[in-house]
Amino acid sequence: MPATNRQMRLKSRPVGLPSTENFDLVDAPMPAADAGGVLRRTIYLSLDPYMRGRMSDAASYATPVALGDVMCGHTVSQVVESRRPGFRAGDFVTGYDGWQQYAVSNGNDLRVLDPKSAPISTAISVLGMPGMTAYVGLLDIGQPQPGETVVVSAASGAVGSIVGQLAKIKDCRAVGIAGSPDKCRYAVDDLGFDACVNYKTDDLVPALRTACPNGVDIYFENVGGAVFAAVLQVLNRGARIPLCGLISEYNATTDPSGPTLRPLLVKRAMIRGFIVSDHNDRAQAFLRECTPLVRDGRLRYREDIVEGLERAPAALVGLFEGRNFGKMLVRVSPDPTRT
Amino acid sequence: MPATNRQMRLKSRPVGLPSTENFDLVDAPMPAADAGGVLRRTIYLSLDPYMRGRMSDAASYATPVALGDVMCGHTVSQVVESRRPGFRAGDFVTGYDGWQQYAVSNGNDLRVLDPKSAPISTAISVLGMPGMTAYVGLLDIGQPQPGETVVVSAASGAVGSIVGQLAKIKDCRAVGIAGSPDKCRYAVDDLGFDACVNYKTDDLVPALRTACPNGVDIYFENVGGAVFAAVLQVLNRGARIPLCGLISEYNATTDPSGPTLRPLLVKRAMIRGFIVSDHNDRAQAFLRECTPLVRDGRLRYREDIVEGLERAPAALVGLFEGRNFGKMLVRVSPDPTRT
Repeated sequence: MPATNRQMRLKSRPVGLPSTENFDLVDAPMPAADAGGVLRRTIYLSLDPYMRGRMSDAASYATPVALGDVMCGHTVSQVVESRRPGFRAGDFVTGYDGWQQYAVSNGNDLRVLDPKSAPISTAISVLGMPGMTAYVGLLDIGQPQPGETVVVSAASGAVGSIVGQLAKIKDCRAVGIAGSPDKCRYAVDDLGFDACVNYKTDDLVPALRTACPNGVDIYFENVGGAVFAAVLQVLNRGARIPLCGLISEYNATTDPSGPTLRPLLVKRAMIRGFIVSDHNDRAQAFLRECTPLVRDGRLRYREDIVEGLERAPAALVGLFEGRNFGKMLVRVSPDPTRT
Repeated sequence: MPATNRQMRLKSRPVGLPSTENFDLVDAPMPAADAGGVLRRTIYLSLDPYMRGRMSDAASYATPVALGDVMCGHTVSQVVESRRPGFRAGDFVTGYDGWQQYAVSNGNDLRVLDPKSAPISTAISVLGMPGMTAYVGLLDIGQPQPGETVVVSAASGAVGSIVGQLAKIKDCRAVGIAGSPDKCRYAVDDLGFDACVNYKTDDLVPALRTACPNGVDIYFENVGGAVFAAVLQVLNRGARIPLCGLISEYNATTDPSGPTLRPLLVKRAMIRGFIVSDHNDRAQAFLRECTPLVRDGRLRYREDIVEGLERAPAALVGLFEGRNFGKMLVRVSPDPTRT
């Protein structure tokens, strides 16, 4: 065990797009497992769009990370030392340990993983917060009915890729919107979407009309901006829009504007913003339904893994530029389950 | 009975704000009540914001009025001649006869009114489409809970005035937004709103914060534009926004823009567009609940009546300029119940 705990701390608040300059790599003292404590080593750190909000001090749905504090984030770790019953050295756990190599707590914030039921990294991707976001947003808010058309933006991303696959499992037509030919091909060929529109090159409204010959019943919104405005034009009567994210706006330095909401009125459509953490009562149902789907290969996922904590800042910036392809993870230390 | 039936027909489609030039006053042949027919004389014609949409040929939730056709509208009439059982000469009825002095049909589109239960004009105002719009939007979509705060724009108008009063009846705080000191005073002093903000002179966001010390749980949206953007800033978590109208945008000649929807995400809020005609199954409940409230003076209303069909076009233009004060009606012929 090293003498120090490497941490990535928030040094300054970004204006617009975050940069690597906003972070500080620090060697902190190694934490110790006191009586009742569980010390663990981070294996995987999840990078997610919501992190942009935590870097700002503007009011959002969660407290911002204080300057000088370790940056927050979901993690998969291995227990190094346990002084609490229920955790043993060598156990794999998932928690919210943030951007650091080691963490300690009483374990109340941890869930033990079974590496035989699914790869441990899935606890922070398809079977973690992104997957559950897709599950709650599509099923509980979108209420998909067989034969309906579901459109999802950021279709090759951690959430979007699951939304489309769950839509197919619920007998809907699944149409993605993504930012490159590779991502569109992936959505259709690997994930089984019925179609995928490239928002960077396609003329969006006609492309959506072609991809959605029966209109759009559910639009799972991850991005905002011009993509949202285009989808509003092709909504069906009674459409539902689970509003999960607006990544195109997160780095705006002036108040972004949106489209008129007239289509919502004309089409009697509904938008509902949601935050997955309000829906923890659905976690058991989600894991029960989706774990076997992952195991059987019916719910596929793709990870985009960078090596080493020191590369996390650049990878986060890349996330906002759409440079990742699949769920963005940082491998902070070797994964003993992958050889 | 005159030899001709005076009608106001749609002559041309407006660009931007409608003008009196878009209408043609025509003397058409007098219609006759054939076997099974009910001939009636229009007493009151309702002027409503939705009419702007029917004057355009852009897709909306209803078919546009064809050029040369009689302009559409809700009416209160008196039966002149009935050749169908169930209707007698002298009966008062409400229907959708449009901008004309006389109309004939088999009566399936008519409902007979009891002039003793409420003034007949209320059938197209507080106990008609505007009142039912308030009822369905506030109660079914807004789902007000005692102690919550309800904000409504166009607060002195036909719909807004009922929304605020129903909110008070449901033990909510009612806050209006209106466009003149007179309208604000009317909302507070005559209708019993707790507060009313003047969107033309007040600094909206701070004025709303003062008027809504506990934030906004329901925003009944009639106007759009800057008012909508301001209310988004003061929403409570879990807020509901019944989207009833966007009158500030109806005459736009370029695509209006809206605010970012980020507050919906942060506050897990919901917007749902609705059209009252989808909710006809609620008409009986509405009349059962609201007719006694009107009779007892607990649901107050104000009518802004212009005299004569020839003045309807100018009155409609005034509606979009906020010049009316109360439900805009045209008295097409004398009301025998008012002496």
